Amino acid sequence: MSIGKSIKRVDAFEKVTGRARYTNDYLLNNALIAKVLHSTIANGIVKKIDISEASKLPGVIKIITCFDVPDITFPTSGHPLSLDIHHADIADRKLLNTRVRYYGDDIAAVIAKSDLIATRAIRLIKVEYEEYEPIMSIDAALKQGARPIHKNFPNNILTHSNYQIGNYDEAIKEEGLILIEGEYITPMVKHCHMEAPISYAYAEAGKMVVVTSTQIPHIIRRIVGQALGIGWGKIRIIKPYIGGGFGDKQDALYEPLNAYLSYIVGGRCVKLNISREEAFVNTRVRHAMKIKIKSYVRPNGRFVARKIEVYGNKGAYASHGHSITSKAGNASKQIYNDEKAIKGDMYSVFTNMPASGAMRAYGIPQITFALESHIDDIARKLDIDVVNIRKLNMMKPDYEDNGIKCYSYGLDECIEKGKEYIEWDKKIEEYKHQTGLIRKGVGMAIFSYATGVYPILLETASCRLVLNQDGSVQVQMGATEIGQGADTIFTQMIAEVLDIPVQNVHLVTTQDTDVTPYDSGAYASRQSYVSGMAAKKAALELKEKIIEHANFMLKLPMGSLELKNSMIVNKENGDILASLEEIATHALYNVEKSVHITADVTNQCKSNTFSFGACFADVEVDMAIGKIKINKVINVHDCGKVLNPQLAAAQVHGGMSMSLGYGLSEQMLFNEKTGKPLNNNFLDYKLPTVMDTPHLEAQFVDTYDISGPFGNKALGEPPAIPVAPAIRNAVYHATGVNFNIIPLTPQRLVERFIEEGLI
Amino acid sequence: MSIGKSIKRVDAFEKVTGRARYTNDYLLNNALIAKVLHSTIANGIVKKIDISEASKLPGVIKIITCFDVPDITFPTSGHPLSLDIHHADIADRKLLNTRVRYYGDDIAAVIAKSDLIATRAIRLIKVEYEEYEPIMSIDAALKQGARPIHKNFPNNILTHSNYQIGNYDEAIKEEGLILIEGEYITPMVKHCHMEAPISYAYAEAGKMVVVTSTQIPHIIRRIVGQALGIGWGKIRIIKPYIGGGFGDKQDALYEPLNAYLSYIVGGRCVKLNISREEAFVNTRVRHAMKIKIKSYVRPNGRFVARKIEVYGNKGAYASHGHSITSKAGNASKQIYNDEKAIKGDMYSVFTNMPASGAMRAYGIPQITFALESHIDDIARKLDIDVVNIRKLNMMKPDYEDNGIKCYSYGLDECIEKGKEYIEWDKKIEEYKHQTGLIRKGVGMAIFSYATGVYPILLETASCRLVLNQDGSVQVQMGATEIGQGADTIFTQMIAEVLDIPVQNVHLVTTQDTDVTPYDSGAYASRQSYVSGMAAKKAALELKEKIIEHANFMLKLPMGSLELKNSMIVNKENGDILASLEEIATHALYNVEKSVHITADVTNQCKSNTFSFGACFADVEVDMAIGKIKINKVINVHDCGKVLNPQLAAAQVHGGMSMSLGYGLSEQMLFNEKTGKPLNNNFLDYKLPTVMDTPHLEAQFVDTYDISGPFGNKALGEPPAIPVAPAIRNAVYHATGVNFNIIPLTPQRLVERFIEEGLI
Repeated sequence: MSIGKSIKRVDAFEKVTGRARYTNDYLLNNALIAKVLHSTIANGIVKKIDISEASKLPGVIKIITCFDVPDITFPTSGHPLSLDIHHADIADRKLLNTRVRYYGDDIAAVIAKSDLIATRAIRLIKVEYEEYEPIMSIDAALKQGARPIHKNFPNNILTHSNYQIGNYDEAIKEEGLILIEGEYITPMVKHCHMEAPISYAYAEAGKMVVVTSTQIPHIIRRIVGQALGIGWGKIRIIKPYIGGGFGDKQDALYEPLNAYLSYIVGGRCVKLNISREEAFVNTRVRHAMKIKIKSYVRPNGRFVARKIEVYGNKGAYASHGHSITSKAGNASKQIYNDEKAIKGDMYSVFTNMPASGAMRAYGIPQITFALESHIDDIARKLDIDVVNIRKLNMMKPDYEDNGIKCYSYGLDECIEKGKEYIEWDKKIEEYKHQTGLIRKGVGMAIFSYATGVYPILLETASCRLVLNQDGSVQVQMGATEIGQGADTIFTQMIAEVLDIPVQNVHLVTTQDTDVTPYDSGAYASRQSYVSGMAAKKAALELKEKIIEHANFMLKLPMGSLELKNSMIVNKENGDILASLEEIATHALYNVEKSVHITADVTNQCKSNTFSFGACFADVEVDMAIGKIKINKVINVHDCGKVLNPQLAAAQVHGGMSMSLGYGLSEQMLFNEKTGKPLNNNFLDYKLPTVMDTPHLEAQFVDTYDISGPFGNKALGEPPAIPVAPAIRNAVYHATGVNFNIIPLTPQRLVERFIEEGLI
Repeated sequence: MSIGKSIKRVDAFEKVTGRARYTNDYLLNNALIAKVLHSTIANGIVKKIDISEASKLPGVIKIITCFDVPDITFPTSGHPLSLDIHHADIADRKLLNTRVRYYGDDIAAVIAKSDLIATRAIRLIKVEYEEYEPIMSIDAALKQGARPIHKNFPNNILTHSNYQIGNYDEAIKEEGLILIEGEYITPMVKHCHMEAPISYAYAEAGKMVVVTSTQIPHIIRRIVGQALGIGWGKIRIIKPYIGGGFGDKQDALYEPLNAYLSYIVGGRCVKLNISREEAFVNTRVRHAMKIKIKSYVRPNGRFVARKIEVYGNKGAYASHGHSITSKAGNASKQIYNDEKAIKGDMYSVFTNMPASGAMRAYGIPQITFALESHIDDIARKLDIDVVNIRKLNMMKPDYEDNGIKCYSYGLDECIEKGKEYIEWDKKIEEYKHQTGLIRKGVGMAIFSYATGVYPILLETASCRLVLNQDGSVQVQMGATEIGQGADTIFTQMIAEVLDIPVQNVHLVTTQDTDVTPYDSGAYASRQSYVSGMAAKKAALELKEKIIEHANFMLKLPMGSLELKNSMIVNKENGDILASLEEIATHALYNVEKSVHITADVTNQCKSNTFSFGACFADVEVDMAIGKIKINKVINVHDCGKVLNPQLAAAQVHGGMSMSLGYGLSEQMLFNEKTGKPLNNNFLDYKLPTVMDTPHLEAQFVDTYDISGPFGNKALGEPPAIPVAPAIRNAVYHATGVNFNIIPLTPQRLVERFIEEGLI
């Protein structure tokens, strides 16, 4: 039995020895190198591009501009194709664009013999623009008369979605309700995956092949086909190991352009080099959001009616914007259920900033910062315990919303475990009546998170298994390893069902759309749930076929045998009758009935379940310098059955680190006048280093989710959700100051403390 | 409909543009290079190897000798594993051998940073031998008291097999029978594939990966596992395009050693460089044979009883020797059926020469040279027409021998077509009464050839199909493209069944045992027959699933739809209801019932059928210089339905060229005293060049074989069979001299003409 055990990652040896191969490691010699020319204005139109000087540079093979590319607009967001046009992704960009929508927009590309030549050529290209004033905020975009960034969206609103439960206007009439309002602001931040989104492309066997660092190879195939206007069967995407994605690579980034660049040089191999500075602004970012909440609450803290407005800063292109802002708004009604009514309005707003896309937890870090700040604001205003007010209002077992159901429930227990670790009650007592410049406080936050995208979008995944002649099993999955340990988890699942050692499960880590079964890919914390079920079903089918052949080989009746510990045994008394290796060898090589034992199974998932978690933080604030020190911090998760405790903890550590940076230091900065990015590098963008990081405690509660393949549910993204608001609330507890904006930088703290007369 | 059409090869563009990638083209930088040290004696024992000087050479990474390798003997011949130990392949060599069995045996290997360093190191290794007299002929090997080359085979006979039909001793007592005896000698020749059998190996993801130029990737996987003593699931073989095989690469050549070399340097990538000189003697060769025939014939030419003895020169190691000599002997009774009795004894004999293995037509070129020479000898002795004597005795429709059945029969027609092209009757008349130094003649030869290896060995093949969302189809087959056009033929078959354009069939040409379905590989002219049936079955299954989904999508009853011309149509009236593309897109993306339409089918073949052919040649002999000029030559084949006329003709041209060289100029030569090869290079080994090659006429007769997937049967090897004997017989006709040995070199001709007093 391997489920629930901390087996070593299947890629551990490869990765620690440096032998694991990433996109760049597969590149053959003599590839051409391409570089992109980015606009130096944030809003406007390219009038003219002069490539004459650049073209003369020896070693330049080809230069294309936004005037040369096919007149095809395509969507980039990594969703399965929706057959319902109302849910279709927005096609709003070309391979290169004459309409410049942010500082850095792609307007030309150079293919040359080397990176150096390409870079020099880029500098020799002269561009004439017609320039407009950059729209650098949601408010500016929504201002009456603001210039539309996309002509199809005259108000700069990509989407406005909404919901209403109950009768809000009636509900707020209840006597004795207290109205509490808040506005919460979250920053634009970056995924900061180690590996840039590099790719290379070449033509082979009548196909355009793109080797790329992506989370979603099968979806990229479709989007490259759409962008180039050719049949998807003529595209082949290969995805080796990748150095992190975190949602950025759940989008078609430069793959379509890269494919086109190879195409225009007759299918020669072209590698598109993307620098760290480009990766910051020319891929995707997390939506900055402004969230307004109006809550009508009884004096005991019970929510009666609530209205929420979510404004997502979409940036220049649609990407995932239509669904992220909407998901954020919807999540607000799930974690907390008002007694009478709740309504939400979600706006996704174009600005002249980098395009916002998917990033770990897809809108939920933003809404959770707002909600969890808001509930602390309420609790402290009403002088109610912050834990109790949450317990009073939060989601209860058996809750269901729009097809997402609470099949298992460990939220209460998450809170209790977190309280215990942080010594909550003791600290509340201890931190009363503080004076001086060092103030201590504890804070917390909770959340719920869905597992996968059902029923909004299609959930489908496939797994192919082949029995090797030594009794080991070959596994092919469309689901992708992106560092999270997916390969290891699937290996455990298959070993579990077949009852063979994990060493005998050989999973092919590289996805190659020519041979890999279909799967939507790594996002929405879906893979262990949706793809894991495909793995389980395939293993069950393989087991059945193995036993069927054992019956044939041993001339024994069906139903008399089972597969145990790599042996075929008598079901009645456990006698060993043959080894799996003997069955496997006989199956293929016997001349009476040779069979190639395989299973190729697709799992369409029609369920969705909620994961839960809580974060507790114990902080001290150095008031004079605005520095927050984390004394203790814990995430407690209910992710159903924990499949591999060590991997699960690693997942939580990574997420907590992200949420820590989100709360304390990370934000993308721009020149407000020109739109030029100011900190698109690791010197100026303040990602937490190991020096900034406290011990990150990860704990789990023990639940079992009947809808998951092995009792499991989402854990990929949730860890990145609650740390920021928990810290914000701890700072509130410590200082009495309720910051409604992150990151909580020293500058921001000091300014506010002065304002409040605290220093 | 694409079957029967000369569609362009699917790999044509890649190959003519030089873009097709072969093993060497996939090699990444920084691979280590290995070279093998070969023995400089032909028979003996390695006493000591001194690597001290070689080891000191900078850049040498590792040297291993025959004293270091695992004590495991393994078989090399490319057959599916036989579960019956009596049919098991002979395990008779280690990775490196202390017992030297031919000049050039592998006794050590160097791994170094470059080819140059490895080559220099090889030269610095000092070897001490205990030397025995080389055994350089079948006769010497069989001589009483000859030293055994393998200790398990004390008489130097690898196998002696035999058959007896009827009572030979009784049959020969018939009155009036004429006894005609002959002894026929064929040379040791070489496949001469363009690409040397290079390979490289590295460890990845817990597996040993070998990228290699082989015909049989799945079998190589098993043999590498056997040779290294590890589970076959831990081996991965990748086979890119290959530059010819012709049977040489139906053997494990250096793959096991290469895998081991990587293993001993911790899995680093090691490329084993094999030169042309090595490829000549250190891979496999075609068995030289000595064939004795004793025929009892009636005056009208009818064969009554016959006895045949076949001696195959096995060389140093078993390889395919046990089956090739046996197959040659058995074929003798198939093409010609004696009225009363026939018996055969086949001996495969070890010598201190390169190991004989599979080469195009697997023993049949040798036996056909003997038989077709013999029957001309009989005809001329009895003064019977050489065509008529064949017709009198040759295989008739519905013949069956040991599970191989004549399901279709075009032999008569082959002969008639050949006669017509060569203007046989006219030439017979014209070439009467010749004098002078230029003599003209016509000759012919016929043959039969089985399709695949059933029932001797397992015949199994698999095909996996995936429907792409644009309605095109992804194909994976274990069957290998080795230049013969297999990929094109499978593409046609699948297009035919599905009724889609061949452009919409995307076949993955590279076999990778991690993801490619099982197939034994390219040999025995089996693939279009056995693997083709797998392709057909898979396409039928895919079609059924497509129609099933169309029924679901269109809400129409089962049985009402069919797939025609990439459209789903109303079966009754042919109305177009949806395109295949629409069905394919809907199948994957609809949220009600998403299906990933695939088919993964294994075909175990339990039939075998005979192909036929005839060659006619019109030659002129320049008696004074012993030079044979081919005026006209034609092969006419009955290969059932011709799947692609242009490809079929190309196949015939290649085979005829091989048989031409076999008859006229090719032979491997050795120093009889030392065993040293004398002409293992293209300067001294006389492969016909384009200057030596006449127009090669290829024609076909129209039959349809019910046992083949599309009426087709063997064509891969047969073209290489009949040209040599047809030329020999034409020379006989021209000069009256019956050479019973090939090649018919000028030296051989002149010596004999002098002997006969003709010049």
